[in-house]
Amino acid sequence: MHNTAQLQQRIIEGLKEIDMPEFPQNLYEPIKYLLQIGGKRIRPLLTLLAADLFSVDDTDNALPAALAVELFHNFSLMHDDIMDNAPLRRGQQTVHEKWNPNVAILSGDNLLIMAYRQLAKCPPEKLPQLLEAFNTMATEVCEGQQLDMDFENMASVGIDDYLRMIRLKTSVLLGTALKMGAILGNADDNDAQHLYDFGVNVGLAFQLQDDILDVYGDPAQFGKQRGGDILANKKTYLLIKALETAGTDIRPELDRWLATDGPAEAKVNAVTVLYDRLGVRQAAELAKQRYIEQAYAALDAIGVHTTRKTPLRTLAQTLLNRTS
Amino acid sequence: MHNTAQLQQRIIEGLKEIDMPEFPQNLYEPIKYLLQIGGKRIRPLLTLLAADLFSVDDTDNALPAALAVELFHNFSLMHDDIMDNAPLRRGQQTVHEKWNPNVAILSGDNLLIMAYRQLAKCPPEKLPQLLEAFNTMATEVCEGQQLDMDFENMASVGIDDYLRMIRLKTSVLLGTALKMGAILGNADDNDAQHLYDFGVNVGLAFQLQDDILDVYGDPAQFGKQRGGDILANKKTYLLIKALETAGTDIRPELDRWLATDGPAEAKVNAVTVLYDRLGVRQAAELAKQRYIEQAYAALDAIGVHTTRKTPLRTLAQTLLNRTS
Repeated sequence: MHNTAQLQQRIIEGLKEIDMPEFPQNLYEPIKYLLQIGGKRIRPLLTLLAADLFSVDDTDNALPAALAVELFHNFSLMHDDIMDNAPLRRGQQTVHEKWNPNVAILSGDNLLIMAYRQLAKCPPEKLPQLLEAFNTMATEVCEGQQLDMDFENMASVGIDDYLRMIRLKTSVLLGTALKMGAILGNADDNDAQHLYDFGVNVGLAFQLQDDILDVYGDPAQFGKQRGGDILANKKTYLLIKALETAGTDIRPELDRWLATDGPAEAKVNAVTVLYDRLGVRQAAELAKQRYIEQAYAALDAIGVHTTRKTPLRTLAQTLLNRTS
Repeated sequence: MHNTAQLQQRIIEGLKEIDMPEFPQNLYEPIKYLLQIGGKRIRPLLTLLAADLFSVDDTDNALPAALAVELFHNFSLMHDDIMDNAPLRRGQQTVHEKWNPNVAILSGDNLLIMAYRQLAKCPPEKLPQLLEAFNTMATEVCEGQQLDMDFENMASVGIDDYLRMIRLKTSVLLGTALKMGAILGNADDNDAQHLYDFGVNVGLAFQLQDDILDVYGDPAQFGKQRGGDILANKKTYLLIKALETAGTDIRPELDRWLATDGPAEAKVNAVTVLYDRLGVRQAAELAKQRYIEQAYAALDAIGVHTTRKTPLRTLAQTLLNRTS
């Protein structure tokens, strides 16, 4: 087995080793730019940790699949940022801002193709299974992004629709990153599925935590402005739950705040008070906790000695306890 | 062997059989829309004809690769139309016009992923070779589109740069469509390469013909307004050649017309007269003829009885004699 730091190092090296032509500059510079402004490289790490869980001695065997996952993730960021009209990504200008939307469309396309180029480097006998897992995930991520955009224009969204959307948009990528590692590590189908379920449930818990932290997190630690979701009327778990549960005593006030643009601090504070009165934080924490339990149950079910699972358990704990 | 009409029918059926979920509607409706407004399905036909050339009895063996090629082509159309700000495609509204650019970005992404889903259905033992061919082509097509956009903002473009651009943007897809069929038909590497060269050279000749027809074609037969490239100052083979060869007697007048927006008919007529004086049509016809000869030389070099090559030869002739 390798330790997590070694694997992270291998991912960083692997990303640097990806063939990146100088020309055409407007096609490749944006890709280099987005890849080098970083991120935590959690997803490729999941692939390598999963392969390692089932005793792959040679990490290089799983590295192309891990890099495919990271390239795919960056492809979806580059295109989502255009669609979401986002000015910043990881504190830096987004590609469509720094260049223009056309450059971001085409470089994003090429990033997706580069992901498949990495996949094609995987052992041939594993290719059909890996492609099946990757393609299913890739389409689901598109479906999730479409639902997310659709929700913006819908008067009301249910909790189940919301959970379905975040499962597709963010969680299946974590599950698939792990499943691909399992496939490369020669795990049996049951174990691969357990690992997938572990990833999806961690992803769901992580997204709920994100919703909670937006309102209740320490801005200094969380790295974002508090209440950004409230100011954007974003249909998070908290808002959807609030709209579902607010009675005639609270609903009119909530609707009034949703219909106003500010002042920012007043809106964030007022909506937070309403959330507190409705207990939506507790509801979200409870849902998060349920996903965490399902995640650990799936991890426990994997037929490998429990000590081998420590790196994955530790990583999940790190992800799920960011500021609490 | 199958005849061309049978294979075309199989492609149309195959496209209808592609799994197309109802939901999310905004993700899949644009894909159905673009696929059903048609096109001649030349590229997937090339894949099936190539497989058939080397005696694949079961066309269904090559069908997924053929569909992958057609889906990829439609992906690139959907995204190129956004970048080119094109209002119409095959006489119908483009997806970004009928819906919006975000829908066209995401549906296009999903089309590309759907192309890979088809690829994944190919015989597993062929997958590595097919992926290698497809991925190389896919990146090249992105590079070609980037060069095409770059050229718009460049004061001067050389003929070699232009030929390189059209090779990447349009010709390698024809070559790769054929090569993939050859791989599936168990052709040896030499024959697969010859077939690829045939396709690339047909593609180059076809693009030069397109440049010529814009100015000299019969608008009724060609289906486009005459002189559209001239009005857009598009850097076609004709314009680049004209700028390269015009001396002090003609260049100032050419520059003057390039600097004006119209009147449309006057501009088209005047530039055509300058093209005639410079003999750029002949230069383009000569270049086109050279590519046609290279294409047929490549086809001749394939180690298969000449009668089996008839459908490919006939198709090339149809493509390359559209109005002459």
